[in-house]
Amino acid sequence: MSFNIVRVARVMMNVTDLDKARDFYVNALGMVETESDDSHLYLRGLEEHVHHSLVLKKAEQPGVHALGYKVYNEGDLEALAALFEEKGFPIKWIEGGSQRAMGKILRVHDISGIPLEFFYKMETVDRYLQRYDLYRGARIQRIDHVNCFVPDVQKAYDFYINELGFKCSEYTATDDDQIWAAWLHRKPNVHDQAFMNGPGPRLHHIGLWVSDPMSIIHGCDVLASMGYTQAIERGPGRHGLSNAFFLYLRDPDGNRIEIYTGDYLTSDPDFKPIRWSLNDPRRQTFWGHQAPDSWFNEATPFLNIQTGEPVRLSEAVLEKHKPDMLV
Amino acid sequence: MSFNIVRVARVMMNVTDLDKARDFYVNALGMVETESDDSHLYLRGLEEHVHHSLVLKKAEQPGVHALGYKVYNEGDLEALAALFEEKGFPIKWIEGGSQRAMGKILRVHDISGIPLEFFYKMETVDRYLQRYDLYRGARIQRIDHVNCFVPDVQKAYDFYINELGFKCSEYTATDDDQIWAAWLHRKPNVHDQAFMNGPGPRLHHIGLWVSDPMSIIHGCDVLASMGYTQAIERGPGRHGLSNAFFLYLRDPDGNRIEIYTGDYLTSDPDFKPIRWSLNDPRRQTFWGHQAPDSWFNEATPFLNIQTGEPVRLSEAVLEKHKPDMLV
Amino acid sequence: MSFNIVRVARVMMNVTDLDKARDFYVNALGMVETESDDSHLYLRGLEEHVHHSLVLKKAEQPGVHALGYKVYNEGDLEALAALFEEKGFPIKWIEGGSQRAMGKILRVHDISGIPLEFFYKMETVDRYLQRYDLYRGARIQRIDHVNCFVPDVQKAYDFYINELGFKCSEYTATDDDQIWAAWLHRKPNVHDQAFMNGPGPRLHHIGLWVSDPMSIIHGCDVLASMGYTQAIERGPGRHGLSNAFFLYLRDPDGNRIEIYTGDYLTSDPDFKPIRWSLNDPRRQTFWGHQAPDSWFNEATPFLNIQTGEPVRLSEAVLEKHKPDMLV
Amino acid sequence: MSFNIVRVARVMMNVTDLDKARDFYVNALGMVETESDDSHLYLRGLEEHVHHSLVLKKAEQPGVHALGYKVYNEGDLEALAALFEEKGFPIKWIEGGSQRAMGKILRVHDISGIPLEFFYKMETVDRYLQRYDLYRGARIQRIDHVNCFVPDVQKAYDFYINELGFKCSEYTATDDDQIWAAWLHRKPNVHDQAFMNGPGPRLHHIGLWVSDPMSIIHGCDVLASMGYTQAIERGPGRHGLSNAFFLYLRDPDGNRIEIYTGDYLTSDPDFKPIRWSLNDPRRQTFWGHQAPDSWFNEATPFLNIQTGEPVRLSEAVLEKHKPDMLV
Ligand SMILES: [Ca+2]
Ligand SMILES: [Fe+2]
Ligand SMILES: [Fe+2]
Ligand SMILES: [Fe+2]
Ligand SMILES: [Fe+2]
Repeated sequence: MSFNIVRVARVMMNVTDLDKARDFYVNALGMVETESDDSHLYLRGLEEHVHHSLVLKKAEQPGVHALGYKVYNEGDLEALAALFEEKGFPIKWIEGGSQRAMGKILRVHDISGIPLEFFYKMETVDRYLQRYDLYRGARIQRIDHVNCFVPDVQKAYDFYINELGFKCSEYTATDDDQIWAAWLHRKPNVHDQAFMNGPGPRLHHIGLWVSDPMSIIHGCDVLASMGYTQAIERGPGRHGLSNAFFLYLRDPDGNRIEIYTGDYLTSDPDFKPIRWSLNDPRRQTFWGHQAPDSWFNEATPFLNIQTGEPVRLSEAVLEKHKPDMLV
Repeated sequence: MSFNIVRVARVMMNVTDLDKARDFYVNALGMVETESDDSHLYLRGLEEHVHHSLVLKKAEQPGVHALGYKVYNEGDLEALAALFEEKGFPIKWIEGGSQRAMGKILRVHDISGIPLEFFYKMETVDRYLQRYDLYRGARIQRIDHVNCFVPDVQKAYDFYINELGFKCSEYTATDDDQIWAAWLHRKPNVHDQAFMNGPGPRLHHIGLWVSDPMSIIHGCDVLASMGYTQAIERGPGRHGLSNAFFLYLRDPDGNRIEIYTGDYLTSDPDFKPIRWSLNDPRRQTFWGHQAPDSWFNEATPFLNIQTGEPVRLSEAVLEKHKPDMLV
Repeated sequence: MSFNIVRVARVMMNVTDLDKARDFYVNALGMVETESDDSHLYLRGLEEHVHHSLVLKKAEQPGVHALGYKVYNEGDLEALAALFEEKGFPIKWIEGGSQRAMGKILRVHDISGIPLEFFYKMETVDRYLQRYDLYRGARIQRIDHVNCFVPDVQKAYDFYINELGFKCSEYTATDDDQIWAAWLHRKPNVHDQAFMNGPGPRLHHIGLWVSDPMSIIHGCDVLASMGYTQAIERGPGRHGLSNAFFLYLRDPDGNRIEIYTGDYLTSDPDFKPIRWSLNDPRRQTFWGHQAPDSWFNEATPFLNIQTGEPVRLSEAVLEKHKPDMLV
Repeated sequence: MSFNIVRVARVMMNVTDLDKARDFYVNALGMVETESDDSHLYLRGLEEHVHHSLVLKKAEQPGVHALGYKVYNEGDLEALAALFEEKGFPIKWIEGGSQRAMGKILRVHDISGIPLEFFYKMETVDRYLQRYDLYRGARIQRIDHVNCFVPDVQKAYDFYINELGFKCSEYTATDDDQIWAAWLHRKPNVHDQAFMNGPGPRLHHIGLWVSDPMSIIHGCDVLASMGYTQAIERGPGRHGLSNAFFLYLRDPDGNRIEIYTGDYLTSDPDFKPIRWSLNDPRRQTFWGHQAPDSWFNEATPFLNIQTGEPVRLSEAVLEKHKPDMLV
């Protein structure tokens, strides 16, 4: 490949009420508010040296504008634009400076219709990693990954591996060896991007990194003491797949957030992807717990990069399984 | 009162297979095997200075022989015998030395029909509190409490408070102020003995103490890696009531064990019992999770101190509530 | 005994600057400020249901007014007054209501000259145990114990055991079996009151309880990020004696605070006190670390209950040992 | 560069007694023994999918044979050989299969005289990441980094950055802006390789990764209970530089091991290296503790790749600072 993707680095999505979002993400989850205006809230994790990893935009309806990937340099943007154009996918350039803190941005739709964006420059800020006096709630450190429902995981997998240069750490397969779900990475931990079989494309969740399981336990306690018991959808628990300690939350608009820690280093080129059977009870929760129906069925729509309208969904190519069949 | 009960100090109950029980309690939960013979397994926690806190007895059927309370001295046994006889409850003396490691034991049935025992003397052993090289699994430190279904919680409450000298730390009440469940203590933490409204008497669970939440998280991981995912019934989570971090397990015979840590000091005579409403979603799990049906319905029978037959159950006096209505 | 002491329950001591003290105890250690006025700061831990456990009084010089013990009822005060008067020790009554939030108080000097106080009534307040949204810094839960240098540990030991009804959990002895230090309790954990051989009487430290080791680790991080590295005197580490995980701090006036967690239940009347040799390298820090000289030499003076003047010190009866010779 | 180094991946060093080494690394630290013979012990961490990350070789004297870096493919070995030959540094080829579990190895001396090795192939094995039933002691997960004394840090820095393609995450500088120490990485966390100013080259320590601070606390407890208090040289504590939670140990032969967790992601090409002043008290231990003299002065010699003799030391180019002046 003639480009180099670093990692998933930001998500831009809608919320209907910025104050409610601030209370949830800043006061309860412990993200840092870098700045805000009447229609945006720019948030980052405690260890992040960049202006933001999450942009919440005030809007009438939920929807995800783009999953943002950082690349090494400006030339990578050109090379990526060429790739997506050659494939016949829509692309759109956003001038440097037209979005707060951002250099030039390339937006595209990927093979599943997911709106992606690529950028190489974002303003940097002070890291608060050692400002322990400012830690609160779940102590979010940084963005870790995004997870999407797509109708055809095999197709998405092939595109990300072969065209975008991702590697696979773990995957779930059906008994007849069809890929049900896949965990793909650029940075060397379990994933930047996961795909699961389901009507899509839809954003299933954003994964936010914390430094240890006790941050998640304390996060639950803080959420409950603030009246957010309804926001706790699943967990805490240990994933079989990825080995991470996790918690799934729904923000005040229903967007799903995963608090995540404790996967492993996947830097070695000869690391063999780990196969999980759909029927292994320890795959989704190592301790055997099942996910609730909402976790299986609900997700956030993506928005078209040109029109801003919700991206049309397609049915999944693999047969639907019960709620306990997904991570 | 003319006697002084120290704390709940041992439970004697049946298991159908001693080897399976050993694998669960010693290898997975990390209890210490003090000794065993063909029909008994004597277990203690890492901090315990006494011969055992759990006696597992080989038998065809599950059943609990007695919930054992330690008293200060031999005279306390006489005073307790007098009390139970005066009330017309069955009593039975077991000679010192006739049970392994034990002095004289007084067995009785309490007002709900629960078989209790009182003793003042048990052989002591080396504590393994600082033998960290021997720690494994969930690292059980000591017995903490027992929790029973009884048909009439108010009646049990009155007997333990007024006749046996317990104090109440927390309780659950219905909207019309009937006591649904109560947490009673002799040692000054939340409880030695809890009662919950339900067909009974039955033993709901034995609560075992660990020193921190990470022992419980690691315990789950060890259980899962040993193939015990089916044993994990509920949690881990935080109780609203008691504030403890908890995990409920079912041993290979279905007996329920709670791993428990993080309640608080209740030594002050002017500590006011905390009232929880049956309808508070944070009461049973502070984070809002519901208990599974099995947790609500299943429990272990008690055995008659004379005949060894299961104690007859009575229906609960308060109306049945849904599974999410109990701690 | 004709009285019943519950536990150590408050300390009243001087600080020279209330704002600096507030920053340290509230912002860094996470104590709750119940209220304050021009010359007092009333602090409590997160689980405490009482108005305060620490009263900081503005003054020119450091000094401890009293170590406060809660008793069961008013009659206990009379019985204690009788005991101290009979022994010829000074006593002083403080009327109920003359100190903020307090009922009647009995002040005395004990056999080592330490100013003690006994009270049975203090106003109660909301507990913040489950207000996790208010947790900060080291998350102090409650007062646990006090530790004093006294010139003659054997004499203090005899008085507390025989006259006041304390029990001994652990002690340090010289090779010729003289008691060098002793850990004594009323509530059933390792101690309410410890004595160490040294010029005295002086207050060595106040022990504050937290619920787990990670609260101490996070406390260190918060202290450092707030510029309090100089306040961290020793630890964190594991005590051999008591098994507790600990951290020693010096407040802005040099008063020593221990953050402490993880000892064990000492309720059993047949629990045998644990003997440590002065020469055991794991006694003071289980991991073998030595205490700094300051920890060995520095302590806070006590004030006379009548005059308010510092209590005169006496030399220790046992020979001085090196800094690594004390817990 | 025409080669691609993945990460530091193994260290081969001498020990004088394999049984003592096994007790320390396997029983106390929790490394997995993949296999052993009369003169070697092959160890790996719980998450490692490769045969080993540490080879301990029986010998009369301590000494490090090589710090091993994994590269992407065989071609990388050729390109690296060309680079080192061009620079006039010694190189040596070791045939695939001549070392247990290893493909072809390139050994060289770097610009400071440190023996490095590069390899692309090692046999793979079962990962024990989710064999929680096998976890013990400090629960070592994987090798993380190596840290060396070199006489001229600036020279080493330039070589690793400009010739080998490392990046710098953090560094220490003197008041006149000379580089005193530097943390360099290939995998995107704080480091694979650190250099500190001192007589060298010598290996200061091997950094082993664990998943959370409680693994380190428990590791200390297990070490102490096994009689290894003498092995605990420094910590546990928080590094200012790197933010990691750490513990330094000396193995039975005096080789220094760091247990390490909690640094951060350094993947971004625009991450600005963090500068620390030599005089910042929070640099080496964020909490302000000083390192002991032994930590400052003692290190393990490297061995010549041809002769096996200890590599000659050179004096440091920057003036010696006190023990509290290094991380
Ligand atoms: Ca000491
Ligand atoms: Fe995820
Ligand atoms: Fe319980
Ligand atoms: Fe203490
Ligand atoms: Fe290091």
